[in-house]
Amino acid sequence: MKSSDIKNKFRDAQLYITAELESWDGIAFFNEDQWNRDEGGGGFTRTIANGRIIEKGGVAFSAVEGEVTALMKEQLKLNGDYFFATGVSIVLHPKHPRHPIMHMNIRYFEIDQEQYWFGGGIDLTPHYINDELATSFHQSLKSICDRYNSEYYSTFKAWADDYFYLPHRDETRGVGGIFFDHLSAGKSISKEQILSLCLDLAKAFPSLYKNQVDRFLFPDFTPKEKEWQNVRRSRYVEFNLLHDRGTKFGIYSNGRTESILLSMPPSAEWFYDYSTLPNSEEEQTILKLKKGLSYL
Amino acid sequence: MKSSDIKNKFRDAQLYITAELESWDGIAFFNEDQWNRDEGGGGFTRTIANGRIIEKGGVAFSAVEGEVTALMKEQLKLNGDYFFATGVSIVLHPKHPRHPIMHMNIRYFEIDQEQYWFGGGIDLTPHYINDELATSFHQSLKSICDRYNSEYYSTFKAWADDYFYLPHRDETRGVGGIFFDHLSAGKSISKEQILSLCLDLAKAFPSLYKNQVDRFLFPDFTPKEKEWQNVRRSRYVEFNLLHDRGTKFGIYSNGRTESILLSMPPSAEWFYDYSTLPNSEEEQTILKLKKGLSYL
Repeated sequence: MKSSDIKNKFRDAQLYITAELESWDGIAFFNEDQWNRDEGGGGFTRTIANGRIIEKGGVAFSAVEGEVTALMKEQLKLNGDYFFATGVSIVLHPKHPRHPIMHMNIRYFEIDQEQYWFGGGIDLTPHYINDELATSFHQSLKSICDRYNSEYYSTFKAWADDYFYLPHRDETRGVGGIFFDHLSAGKSISKEQILSLCLDLAKAFPSLYKNQVDRFLFPDFTPKEKEWQNVRRSRYVEFNLLHDRGTKFGIYSNGRTESILLSMPPSAEWFYDYSTLPNSEEEQTILKLKKGLSYL
Repeated sequence: MKSSDIKNKFRDAQLYITAELESWDGIAFFNEDQWNRDEGGGGFTRTIANGRIIEKGGVAFSAVEGEVTALMKEQLKLNGDYFFATGVSIVLHPKHPRHPIMHMNIRYFEIDQEQYWFGGGIDLTPHYINDELATSFHQSLKSICDRYNSEYYSTFKAWADDYFYLPHRDETRGVGGIFFDHLSAGKSISKEQILSLCLDLAKAFPSLYKNQVDRFLFPDFTPKEKEWQNVRRSRYVEFNLLHDRGTKFGIYSNGRTESILLSMPPSAEWFYDYSTLPNSEEEQTILKLKKGLSYL
């Protein structure tokens, strides 16, 4: 399998996802920007704003290559001289505080045309956690993982708990999902199967998101709910700028800033020492932002 | 000079600054939180919100000590076993988009009671750059630096240009100021003089800020100006979470999160690929966010 085949399938996945989300949102469309990276490669960044459901969202495809610079070696712990990387990344920020943020990423990395690996992840960040919807999300992820290896879901779920975590807040980003990295062919899986797993995740994204929203449509929100959404969005900003590997990779490999920071919410608020009211729904959400919770 | 003397003088500087800012703002007061760090030391965090001028601000004092952990060695490049660090940090976010954000930090660091150094910095981030006010700010800093060494201003000004810089935006954070680090006694300056320089900077802060505001009082702002303020605030967030050393030190030394993230603005907005109108005041500001501009 050539890296150009993977790149083409990733680009197809991006087009599929945006077409599905457009027809569902119904009022907003994705704009596409093509960009080139001076050192090699480029991408297509698709963005949407002010839709029926989505306030700000992006589905980015990129395929970049070039020299592994000293900065990349130091900051990204890469060994080798030449890299190729392709991936699809999505973050959707809904208008309504009762609808969740959802993120998905699949990526393929090659060094010196010898080593390669895949990575991927999908996670759900409700502003208000709904147990039923969190369970539905995890069940769907398990059924996708189970097509490939019966241990993947539990391994990748635990990995997501560790990865989508803000140590300085002692909070998970949301109700988790799955995360994996450095996955290459071995006894139990071929390169084609790993690619297929990545594509299954990508193609499941639109229906996973619709399922979170369509089953629970809400009336207008209160200013208090909007404030809480902005507080949760500020934590999303903190995670992405302090910890997210894709953001770091983009910044340190001299990627396109607007495509890297596509994940930023439309707005965020910081209050000093914000506290939730006892027994409020906001407090109930905070109490569930913990590692190791089972949703099955 | 004992480290406890430095700590006491830093705490006094915090109290002086907050008293001055309170009497000037006139309607809001600082709240004080005392906190302790499990591994040693603690601090007093003073915060203000919804004042006449200041929407959200903080003046933090801390004095922490303890083991230099493996994480601190790796992430902060510290050599040694035991550290002591004390400092005062300020960030003020004004309500009005025509008033600037201002930041100041002074710090003293000791390793194994042998090595020590001081650091400091002050920088001005107008949402709309006003040349006259930027010049006034730099002139005041130069006059403080000149009391100690005629080369400090130009050296520390260039250091600030390099430090308060967002590579992924190719923008400086604002109109700069001064920055220095790892300053210890030598032929041309004693330890007492460096401390005195730090304290001069801290004590100048209230009048420097008042000067930015009182000379230019504005009527109500437009929604467009507020939006632009929120865009500039998003860049402030990016700088602090991606680059700021104080934030990194706080996070990696297991400091108190709410005190570390005191610098966050009350709100921020991200638009995909935001662009300014040709010849607008917003564009004029962007064009001046460059290193190496002289304000004298």
